[in-house]
Amino acid sequence: MNEFSLIDRYFKNISFQREDVILGIGDDAACLRVPVDMDLVVSTDTLVEGVHFLADWDAYDIATRAVLVNVSDMAAMGAIPCWTTLALTLPSLNEGWLQRYSKGLADSLGVYQIALVGGDTTRGPLTMTLTMHGLVPKGRGIKRSGAKVGDLIMVSGDLGAAALAVSFLDKKNELSDEVVKKLLQPTPRVDLRDFLLQYATSAIDISDGLAADLNHILQASQVGACINLEKIPVHPTVKQHHHEFATEFALRGGDDYELCFTSSPDNASEIERLGLSCHCIGIVEAELGLRAVLLNGDKIPLATAGYSHF
Amino acid sequence: MNEFSLIDRYFKNISFQREDVILGIGDDAACLRVPVDMDLVVSTDTLVEGVHFLADWDAYDIATRAVLVNVSDMAAMGAIPCWTTLALTLPSLNEGWLQRYSKGLADSLGVYQIALVGGDTTRGPLTMTLTMHGLVPKGRGIKRSGAKVGDLIMVSGDLGAAALAVSFLDKKNELSDEVVKKLLQPTPRVDLRDFLLQYATSAIDISDGLAADLNHILQASQVGACINLEKIPVHPTVKQHHHEFATEFALRGGDDYELCFTSSPDNASEIERLGLSCHCIGIVEAELGLRAVLLNGDKIPLATAGYSHF
Repeated sequence: MNEFSLIDRYFKNISFQREDVILGIGDDAACLRVPVDMDLVVSTDTLVEGVHFLADWDAYDIATRAVLVNVSDMAAMGAIPCWTTLALTLPSLNEGWLQRYSKGLADSLGVYQIALVGGDTTRGPLTMTLTMHGLVPKGRGIKRSGAKVGDLIMVSGDLGAAALAVSFLDKKNELSDEVVKKLLQPTPRVDLRDFLLQYATSAIDISDGLAADLNHILQASQVGACINLEKIPVHPTVKQHHHEFATEFALRGGDDYELCFTSSPDNASEIERLGLSCHCIGIVEAELGLRAVLLNGDKIPLATAGYSHF
Repeated sequence: MNEFSLIDRYFKNISFQREDVILGIGDDAACLRVPVDMDLVVSTDTLVEGVHFLADWDAYDIATRAVLVNVSDMAAMGAIPCWTTLALTLPSLNEGWLQRYSKGLADSLGVYQIALVGGDTTRGPLTMTLTMHGLVPKGRGIKRSGAKVGDLIMVSGDLGAAALAVSFLDKKNELSDEVVKKLLQPTPRVDLRDFLLQYATSAIDISDGLAADLNHILQASQVGACINLEKIPVHPTVKQHHHEFATEFALRGGDDYELCFTSSPDNASEIERLGLSCHCIGIVEAELGLRAVLLNGDKIPLATAGYSHF
């Protein structure tokens, strides 16, 4: 088997087929048709062995995670994911590994009806880069820079379970499948797309930790915020295992791929009525920086440093 | 300096600015506006240290090459390159290296008026994946699968100089700058775009070697070909250094990033009149496989295996 038969066997026809793919895998480039009323949304994420996943992970989970973290970027923009490329660098040709990887890729792309339209296969240390392409109504892509003073700060779902799973990497069987899945197979919140397009003034997906990612919104929007630590939705298992530090897991732990977004206070009752399990954790303020309000009403500054590769 | 200040300093505002970039570097994803009469063209190429470049190469050349090989894919599709993402995996934070890399990136993107719209910076073995985005008039992307029996087989420019430079990697100063540049800074043939859109029935860029890449056209088009080895345009320096094997360098050596394309014989006089230094090297035939015609008229099969990572 060489590079080309590898592509034919494991990547060429595995994914969802879409009519807007004029030309897919197997040419110098893919040709894709973008509807006239849509903007193209493009994100890229690399996963490196030993950094984003460990050598002993099931290749199925590695592929799945590579897809889902990119889909999450689409969710944060209010975009529908459509097409992806895959640049895969492999140390050797391991057919068992490739079968599991290909299956994980096919399954996760299938769930979101994403077509794999091209890529590059090279030899080297195990690394993969997906470049995900989505569509959003023209001019409606949700930016980080749209938060306004007075906006509500919202979080979807609950936080901390993925960070808990990271802290149990050596003893995963002590955790429920549901918690481990939060790390290996996070659920990007594309289900919130219509809601976000209608109500969000800014959005980001929580990959580096709530404090760090909310801070990206604040910096891009040139505003500050005050949040109530009691209001942060913490996954119940995190509370069980780390009662004392549960909020810290939720605030600092990344990898949950829930969304943090802001919305005008005028929408508060509408958001509540929709019952989308989105939680209001604070308010956008004019004073720069991120603060927490304590039970006695005092405000303390919160650190916002997140994961950095360097 | 952390990941974010690194991006701000070396990548954020270095490249050509385009009005069709609604949202560039610094959000969850980029937002791009595709004109209503155009298809989106997407290609991706990874460069791995030790495979595609050596550790002692100037970072300026590495960045330049990463851009140019992707621009070459656009050229082969008849597309205008517009936007790129960059996924860069770095073993450490070396500011001197990053400065040179950033400069190479800015210069080469500037030449082609390409905007750097997003990316990902991670820590790990030195690897980079560019995903290039271009535009082609709707339905006009030039495929590998369009070659017809009787078509002329054409090659742009001359071949073999990049392979010669590879064979002199340890003694580059024995070669002229012009020949070394063929390897380090190849010239993608975007200048042929209008011509190809009008005349080409199929096209590919020559990255793996003429025989291997022409064979991709033949397989995709389900045809064969007979070429005249005497007609293959060989770079004059290759003839000087390797008189006996010059054709072999041109036929098997990759990395030249010239184009191989097919065109109806009806266009022969028009192509000649345009004087674009494109050379007719053979004819598409119904009989599958690649053959060479000898001086005595005999035909011999040609091997078509190109570079494979595995």
